[in-house]
Amino acid sequence: MFYKAHVFCCTNERPAGHARGCCKEKGAEKLRNYMKARVKELGLEGVRVNNAGCLDRCELGPAFVIYPEGVWYSPKTVEDAEEIIQTHLLGGERVARLALEDGQK
Amino acid sequence: MFYKAHVFCCTNERPAGHARGCCKEKGAEKLRNYMKARVKELGLEGVRVNNAGCLDRCELGPAFVIYPEGVWYSPKTVEDAEEIIQTHLLGGERVARLALEDGQK
Repeated sequence: MFYKAHVFCCTNERPAGHARGCCKEKGAEKLRNYMKARVKELGLEGVRVNNAGCLDRCELGPAFVIYPEGVWYSPKTVEDAEEIIQTHLLGGERVARLALEDGQK
Repeated sequence: MFYKAHVFCCTNERPAGHARGCCKEKGAEKLRNYMKARVKELGLEGVRVNNAGCLDRCELGPAFVIYPEGVWYSPKTVEDAEEIIQTHLLGGERVARLALEDGQK
């Protein structure tokens, strides 16, 4: 396994007014940038944060998934992103209040 | 688990002449498009193909990773991509000749 935790952040953009919305309009890029910077700052080994195309959770975005665990999150603020870093990436526990249920759309 | 197989295809572009090269200049988009179209055509349930940002395997690109297994590939042609579909996604076996070794850069 190349990465202990590989975080994919949907930053997909749909045309304005699209019925499902998109993660980009919901601030995904800011949260991606925050996580990327914090992971670097904290020196988290084996953790990588990447952009991803549409993860098909548009209505619930911003949608993030952490592999290989396959845990899905919807952080809305940088505080949410920080909680995922502290609790999940550093603490090894799930952040239930930000998690998407299996298959939830 | 939302997806049985979640394929991330690095399509990152670096400036022309960058020492490490990039997956985009190595034809990653064509291979991503091919895999996406074939997965749809074959009706593969629970398989999703997504773009990803830089997976940090620039020299070995195009770099693809399949989660949750965490198996990394470097397909060079559509025939390679088809082999990954047939052997890995449909057949459940690895394509050794196209696989990147654990941590290989």
